[in-house]
Amino acid sequence: MKKYISTLIVFFVFSLTLCVAQSEKPAIKEDFKPSVLNQPGKEYPMVNSQGYARFRIEAPEAQSVVVSLGLGGTRGGTPLTKNDDGVWMGTTAGPMDEGFHYYHVTIDGGVFNDPGALNYYGSVRWESGIEIPAHDQDFYALKNVPHGHVQQVLFPSPSTETSRRAFVYTPPGYDKNQSERYPVLYLQHGWGEDETAWMNQGRANLIMDNLIAEGKIDPFIIVNTYGMTNEIKFGGLRNFDITPFQTVLVDELIPYVDEHFRTIPDQAHRAMAGLSMGGMETKDITLNKPEVFSHYALLSGGIYAPEDLKDHSNLKLVFISCGSKERPDGVKNAVVALKDAGYNAVSYVSEGTAHEFQTWRRSLYQLAPLLFKE
Amino acid sequence: MKKYISTLIVFFVFSLTLCVAQSEKPAIKEDFKPSVLNQPGKEYPMVNSQGYARFRIEAPEAQSVVVSLGLGGTRGGTPLTKNDDGVWMGTTAGPMDEGFHYYHVTIDGGVFNDPGALNYYGSVRWESGIEIPAHDQDFYALKNVPHGHVQQVLFPSPSTETSRRAFVYTPPGYDKNQSERYPVLYLQHGWGEDETAWMNQGRANLIMDNLIAEGKIDPFIIVNTYGMTNEIKFGGLRNFDITPFQTVLVDELIPYVDEHFRTIPDQAHRAMAGLSMGGMETKDITLNKPEVFSHYALLSGGIYAPEDLKDHSNLKLVFISCGSKERPDGVKNAVVALKDAGYNAVSYVSEGTAHEFQTWRRSLYQLAPLLFKE
Repeated sequence: MKKYISTLIVFFVFSLTLCVAQSEKPAIKEDFKPSVLNQPGKEYPMVNSQGYARFRIEAPEAQSVVVSLGLGGTRGGTPLTKNDDGVWMGTTAGPMDEGFHYYHVTIDGGVFNDPGALNYYGSVRWESGIEIPAHDQDFYALKNVPHGHVQQVLFPSPSTETSRRAFVYTPPGYDKNQSERYPVLYLQHGWGEDETAWMNQGRANLIMDNLIAEGKIDPFIIVNTYGMTNEIKFGGLRNFDITPFQTVLVDELIPYVDEHFRTIPDQAHRAMAGLSMGGMETKDITLNKPEVFSHYALLSGGIYAPEDLKDHSNLKLVFISCGSKERPDGVKNAVVALKDAGYNAVSYVSEGTAHEFQTWRRSLYQLAPLLFKE
Repeated sequence: MKKYISTLIVFFVFSLTLCVAQSEKPAIKEDFKPSVLNQPGKEYPMVNSQGYARFRIEAPEAQSVVVSLGLGGTRGGTPLTKNDDGVWMGTTAGPMDEGFHYYHVTIDGGVFNDPGALNYYGSVRWESGIEIPAHDQDFYALKNVPHGHVQQVLFPSPSTETSRRAFVYTPPGYDKNQSERYPVLYLQHGWGEDETAWMNQGRANLIMDNLIAEGKIDPFIIVNTYGMTNEIKFGGLRNFDITPFQTVLVDELIPYVDEHFRTIPDQAHRAMAGLSMGGMETKDITLNKPEVFSHYALLSGGIYAPEDLKDHSNLKLVFISCGSKERPDGVKNAVVALKDAGYNAVSYVSEGTAHEFQTWRRSLYQLAPLLFKE
C-alpha cells in the first residue's frame, strides 16, 4: 500500500513539473544527513544521497509553513505538515540540483529564514542556504592544504561619497613571497547578491586553494565588490546604468588594489568576470574600457558577438559559460562564432545545473587555469 | 486622559524592571529612523533619539508575534499587535541601552529572525541585531580615514583535525610598510558567539582605524578566533575545559600568525583579552602560560587576585572592565588590590551599560592606548 501511494505521488510529481532531475523516480533513501551549511549543532535541514532535502521547523501555533524550495529546487515549494509535537516537517517532492540553493520559509504568510541554516545574501535579502552534495564537490572542499587569505578592505569611493567594501583573495604564499607580484581577476556577483557571494556561496577561495595545491594554476588575486544595482537609486535591471559601478570599479577600486596589494598593474594581467547580472556588467565595462582588461568571462551572463570585440587588440581570452538547464546552445554558438572570427574563445556548459551557484563554481574552476597564461 | 494612562504605563514599567535607562519617562518622540544594522533598503526595525525601538513584522495569518527585546532591552519582551493590513507592529516599553543588541522574534511559538535586520552570531545562533545610537558612537563610526584590512585566515589545527578560522586585523599601512613589524592582541568573544563577533558586533576594526587616524595609538594587529566552547564535545561552561582551546591558541594559531604576518613574535609584544567567557579563557590561559603574554585584559569576564600573578615577572598590564549595570565595585576593588600589590592595573566602568557589546566596544577603546607602551 505504501509503495502504491508513493507511485501515485511520483505520477503526481511528474504531472506538475519538468524539473525532476531523474527520468525514473527511485524510492527516497533514508540516509539523510545535516546540510553542511547548517548553523553549528543544528540537525535540520537535512539532505540525502539522492539530493532530496528534508526540513524541520518549530512553530507549534502556526497555521501554515511552506519552504520555498520545491520540485527539483527550481520551482514550486514544499509545504510542511505539523506532527503531534507541534513540529512542522517535510521533504522535497524531487531531488534537487547538486550544489548550493537559496531558500526561505513562509510562516502564516510572512517570509522568514530557517533557524537551522546559515544565511547567504541573495534575492536582495539574507536567505537561508542549503548544500546538496555534488559528485564533483571535491574541487571546492575545505582540505588540509595551504589556504589563501580573504581580506575585507574598505576603499575610499569619492563618487559614492563613502568607504565601500571589497573582498580580496590573496593566494597561499602571498605573505611570505614579499617580492612576488600577482595578476588580478575582478569577479562580480549576480543581481540581488553582494560582494560576499563568491567567497561564501561560491567558495572561490577554496576552489583557488585546491587548484594551487594541485599545481593546476599559477596563483592570482581575486577581488569581489558590490555591483550596486540593488541600491534604489540605480533602479532595477531594465533601467540599469553601468556608469556609477564602472566609476567605482575602474577609477576607485582598481587603483586601490594596485596600491595596497602586490599586483602586476597592467592590462595583460587583469581579468574581469561576472555571473548573471555580473556578466552583463562585465560585458558593459569591458566594451566601454577595452584598455583595462585582457581576459573576459561571462558566467550565465550573456555573450559577446565578434563585432563587439573588433577594437580589442589586447584581448587574450573570452570565456562564456552556463548550466545545461539554461541556454547551452547560445553559449556554444557564440563561442564558435568568436573562434571563426579568430578570437581565443572557450565555452563551458555545467551538466545538470541551472542558473545557480554550482554552475558558477564549476565555471570558475574551468576558467582559472585559462587565465594569465602568457 | 492619554497623559494619565501613559503615567500609569510608566508606573507599570517601573514596577516590572530596574532596567529603564531614565528615572523620568518622557513622551516617546516620533523621530524614528531605520536601525543602521538593517538589511539593505529595509525600513524596520527603527530606533528613535531616546533609544526606543519599533518593530514591524509581516505575518498576516500569525496568532502571536513577540520580539525578545523588551523593557530597557535587558529583560521581558515586546508583544506586537496586528494592524488592519495584517502587519504586526510594536515599540519597546522603555528606552534601550545605547549600542548593539541581539534579538529574535517568536512567531506562533517558533523562534525566527527579523527579516529586516542583519544577523549576528550570539546565543549559539545567528540572531537579529539592532543598533541604538549612542552619545559616544563617533569612536566606532565608519569614517573617511585610512582603513585596515580584516583578513579571514584558515589555519591548520592538528589537535582538532581541521582548518580553523581566524580573523586578523592588519592596521592601515601594513601593506605598504613592508619592513615594519607589529605587536598582536589576541581578542576573544563571549559564550554563544564566535570569531565574527569582535569585528561585526564590536566594530573592533573601525575602533582601531579611528584611534590610529587620531594618533592616539601605535598600530597593532588584532586576532580573533573561535573559543570552541559552543561545540558539544566541550560541554557547557560548568564543565568547561580550557585545554583544547589553549592548545589551538598557543600551539597552533600564534605560530601561524607569527609565520604569516609581520608580528613582533615575543611575549613583550603579545596581549590577550576577552569578553565574558572570553575573559574566563584569558584568565585561564594567561595563568597556565605566564610566558606567552605580557598584557592581560578581562572585559566583563572576572578578575585577577594579586596572588594569581605572583609568578608573572614579565607582566606589563592588567586591565579589568565591566558595565556600570554589572558589578563595577568588584572590578574597581580588584584593581585597587592589584595596584596595592605593585601591579600596573587599570579598571574601566562603562556608564549606563550592562553585559553587552557597548561595554566591550568602550573597553577596547580604553584598552588599546594602554597596550605595548614600552
